[in-house]
Amino acid sequence: MLLRMSTLFLRTLREDPADAEVPSHKLLVRAGYVRRAAPGVYSWLPLGWHVFRNVERVVREEMDRSGAQEVHFPALLPKEPYERTGRWTEYGDLLFRLQDRKGQDYLLGPTHEEMFTLLVKDLYSSYKDLPLSIYQIQVKYRDEARPRAGILRGREFVMKDSYSFDVDDAGLERSYRQHRDAYVRTFTRLGLDYTIVSAVSGAMGGSASEEFLAPCESGEDTFVRCSACDYAANVEAVETPVPEALPVEGLPAAHVEDTPATPTIQTLVDLLNGREDLRREDRDWTAADTLKNVVVRLRHPDGRVEALAVGLPGDREVDLKRLEAQVAPAEVEPFTEEDFGARPQLVKGYIGPGALGEDRPAGVRYLLDPRVVPGTRWVTGADAPGRHVVDLVAGRDFTGDGTVEAAEVRAGDPCPRCGGALEIARGIEIGHIFQLGRKYAEALDLKVLDENGKQVVVTMGSYGIGVSRAVAAVAEQTYDAQGLCWPREIAPADVHVVATGKDATVFEAAERLCADLEAGGARVLYDDRRGVSPGVKFKDSELIGVPSIVVVGKGLADGVVELKDRRTGEREQLPVEGAAGAVLAAVGLGQPSGAPEPA
Amino acid sequence: MLLRMSTLFLRTLREDPADAEVPSHKLLVRAGYVRRAAPGVYSWLPLGWHVFRNVERVVREEMDRSGAQEVHFPALLPKEPYERTGRWTEYGDLLFRLQDRKGQDYLLGPTHEEMFTLLVKDLYSSYKDLPLSIYQIQVKYRDEARPRAGILRGREFVMKDSYSFDVDDAGLERSYRQHRDAYVRTFTRLGLDYTIVSAVSGAMGGSASEEFLAPCESGEDTFVRCSACDYAANVEAVETPVPEALPVEGLPAAHVEDTPATPTIQTLVDLLNGREDLRREDRDWTAADTLKNVVVRLRHPDGRVEALAVGLPGDREVDLKRLEAQVAPAEVEPFTEEDFGARPQLVKGYIGPGALGEDRPAGVRYLLDPRVVPGTRWVTGADAPGRHVVDLVAGRDFTGDGTVEAAEVRAGDPCPRCGGALEIARGIEIGHIFQLGRKYAEALDLKVLDENGKQVVVTMGSYGIGVSRAVAAVAEQTYDAQGLCWPREIAPADVHVVATGKDATVFEAAERLCADLEAGGARVLYDDRRGVSPGVKFKDSELIGVPSIVVVGKGLADGVVELKDRRTGEREQLPVEGAAGAVLAAVGLGQPSGAPEPA
Repeated sequence: MLLRMSTLFLRTLREDPADAEVPSHKLLVRAGYVRRAAPGVYSWLPLGWHVFRNVERVVREEMDRSGAQEVHFPALLPKEPYERTGRWTEYGDLLFRLQDRKGQDYLLGPTHEEMFTLLVKDLYSSYKDLPLSIYQIQVKYRDEARPRAGILRGREFVMKDSYSFDVDDAGLERSYRQHRDAYVRTFTRLGLDYTIVSAVSGAMGGSASEEFLAPCESGEDTFVRCSACDYAANVEAVETPVPEALPVEGLPAAHVEDTPATPTIQTLVDLLNGREDLRREDRDWTAADTLKNVVVRLRHPDGRVEALAVGLPGDREVDLKRLEAQVAPAEVEPFTEEDFGARPQLVKGYIGPGALGEDRPAGVRYLLDPRVVPGTRWVTGADAPGRHVVDLVAGRDFTGDGTVEAAEVRAGDPCPRCGGALEIARGIEIGHIFQLGRKYAEALDLKVLDENGKQVVVTMGSYGIGVSRAVAAVAEQTYDAQGLCWPREIAPADVHVVATGKDATVFEAAERLCADLEAGGARVLYDDRRGVSPGVKFKDSELIGVPSIVVVGKGLADGVVELKDRRTGEREQLPVEGAAGAVLAAVGLGQPSGAPEPA
Repeated sequence: MLLRMSTLFLRTLREDPADAEVPSHKLLVRAGYVRRAAPGVYSWLPLGWHVFRNVERVVREEMDRSGAQEVHFPALLPKEPYERTGRWTEYGDLLFRLQDRKGQDYLLGPTHEEMFTLLVKDLYSSYKDLPLSIYQIQVKYRDEARPRAGILRGREFVMKDSYSFDVDDAGLERSYRQHRDAYVRTFTRLGLDYTIVSAVSGAMGGSASEEFLAPCESGEDTFVRCSACDYAANVEAVETPVPEALPVEGLPAAHVEDTPATPTIQTLVDLLNGREDLRREDRDWTAADTLKNVVVRLRHPDGRVEALAVGLPGDREVDLKRLEAQVAPAEVEPFTEEDFGARPQLVKGYIGPGALGEDRPAGVRYLLDPRVVPGTRWVTGADAPGRHVVDLVAGRDFTGDGTVEAAEVRAGDPCPRCGGALEIARGIEIGHIFQLGRKYAEALDLKVLDENGKQVVVTMGSYGIGVSRAVAAVAEQTYDAQGLCWPREIAPADVHVVATGKDATVFEAAERLCADLEAGGARVLYDDRRGVSPGVKFKDSELIGVPSIVVVGKGLADGVVELKDRRTGEREQLPVEGAAGAVLAAVGLGQPSGAPEPA
């Protein structure tokens, strides 16, 4: 492959595009890889398309190697299967819906569980047909509320999605492991630094689930990793280590105190610390001594609404994403003034054991943070304005309906695996693997006959890689101040030959070099533009980010060309005779047959 | 590549699918290549996807070889550019339209002239940047009224569309020629029998235009070819040879006759032949002596409606597709009773020189078939029920506003090039090349500076190949009574190895053969299913249509395997030792290194 910049459909830009926030977006537009067509919808220019197709090739090769079989579904899908699984409505505004000329409802597929399930049902009927893993590399559509970050989060994007079908849980576990291994190989080949984090499956339903995150500052996903062991989880999945229960015996009885003008936790803590009669020997009162009861509405898919009170230490906020992951598919909505009005027992700002105890109003659920174990002592509201209960003991004076992981995770929190300090990091979700289980097979009635001739529901896995997103993720992790900086496997070319100056011999030598490189199997980008200054050409080569740059220019008078490593900046003078062989060796392609030995 | 049928996601069917009419549709479903997901919307199974990707590869290679550069646009497109060119409304019901969550209008791209034009405008500004040819292989959407014939005419389909940009007509001619050559190479490699026919560009606007049609009975396109020379054209583009004008002198004057009870041309001809006073010496009256005036409504894109009368010989029908191609972008609608009511001069069934002469009603255009040259004599309506004019002479007694190619073309009509007899044939449109000209560049203001620093409008070409359709077209042209019959270049595999019987040695020998074939570079489909009868396996191999079939079975006792040519049915016994080498040689892949010489 030889791409000539004199005719390449490319214009590099000196300025960042106005709408770009993250580095990959700025650089991919400036270097002429992509262009915006509409909000969250991008066109690929030739250089970008080369990179995209390289990523696609790696993904395909590793999926094939894992034994998965490639198929291809339409993006335009009928409503009916998505109605049967409830996702036609569950997806809400995220779904692009449309009608055909006959008024039939269609959607643009955001993911294809339904269609794969129905196809397998169409073809297969016996346990002997399984296991099966099938995949596609295909365009997906999601009407994101705030499409941002260029191709990192578009509304039209390319995903590799695959689905496994097994007759039992052990089979699903094997299929899941095969996908996990394929993803490890894929992301390694793509040159991505990634972390595999535990995930809860959220709205997708199902059990085991892990995300592949590419750590980087522009990442939209916050995750947690242990500074001591290799534990990592997305924030939704972090489990709070449960402290041991404490003895209740000998603890003082709960007592209600007047606490005027304490609308916030800080004012309450200040008041407690100012009250001589409440002073404790060992330490001052802190927000962590208080128990905050936060009420929200839960809207269930069937339309049912209930109230949920979450009791958690007062030094922590409720993390809505964590809470939503716990209560999915129900959605969390704010508790309104009307909601309070309808339940006068719940005194805003002072909700306490009275309102949340045994006599609590019907339709109110009360879940506790896992740290609120029996024997812990709390200050909390006394169900009346300006009053709080002190020495309220969990397990003795109050209990919840269960626990919930709704409190924010903070850097320094203990690792649930080893107790070490957790760190908070940001990353881009580049892959996701799920043990879906039987949810879709049940909804769409996918059964096979087992060994005993009995109909059994198939168990499924669902696995995704963001193919177009991976292009941006690699760019995010590898760019530097000068521009993009591709790993060779997915770079638009192996070598960027830059001919500088006006001398015809320069262009002749560069042409010969390019021909030799191409003959040696290298993919070559050749800056053969006349009348463009060396400075502009060098800047463009840095911006475009091909891993090896060969400058054919002034050095030619001394019989040398310069080989530069785009990443390290290392330069090497090569005798022009034999330069092709040396360059090919440097890029791992050996040397063209018949070429002179590199000097 | 080695695909094992024991695990391949495939089920062949014995019965034709109920909704399938054409052979390729029946066979592609039966052989497990595609499955219907919704009307006109198909999923590709592994075998079909292999064929699709082979076709895609050939198309890509030949486009790249022609110097075109690959890009990739979204399918979800904003309304605005399509509004500027008028196609948002012109496309009518054919366009899938939708809104995003903010209520912005979008469409699913039916073709991408607008987007390519805008992208070039975005990047380029000088004649030095041109010529440019860019292409994509991408999903397209058209909401066909009657999706039929499986992937031959889907509502979601894959097209290679390219666009050329030139500064002048000579450049466009060169770009057009490059595409034409690339298409010839592409369709030849795909193993398609094709005819290049002249086309009128219809709704696309523009000038020179040719279609690549694959002749076959299931084709939706009717075209015309000369039995004597190499002239070929689609029906819309056939030009009627214009006869020489005849002398008017000495012809009798026109005379009106009572012709009661002549509502049809046949009744009129019968009446004429029965009237002694109208008898002609040389021959009987025929329908070809009558002039039929057919009135239709033309609806222009701006909403304006006019009446169009077409005068043509009474032995020919108006071909609506031909008429529509002539009047595009106006649309043809039937002339209603109300339309007649509003223009009482037009007497239905008896429209003649009075109503269509100089005093004809405002808003009525009168166009004549090219055969109606001056000096020809006609019988036509006399603008009153039951009355006709005889000896009405064109050019003397009536003239039109021009001519129009609206009459049906019939087998035996003279070739416009050589006068030979035309044949009518059917074909599948597999490619289309257009000289679009400046229509889109003007609408979207794509200009570049020319050599003199003057802004000039760019001239464009537009070129399409139906990639998914080509799969069906090849199937249509190559199938036989047993099933599909792929040319090797796009076949899902080079060799189909069929192991028959229950003997373990058979499967061992087949495994070894497959391994050797794979090592030799062959793509192998291996029927390794146990417990499936030889008959079923043979039937499946015929249905699936891999070009070479190797049977490893009973012959093994005599030390031979059988190589069968799927197309010709020719069989050859090969010694099992060296069989791989012989098979590889037969499929054009030479022999694996280290393999024994074929016997």
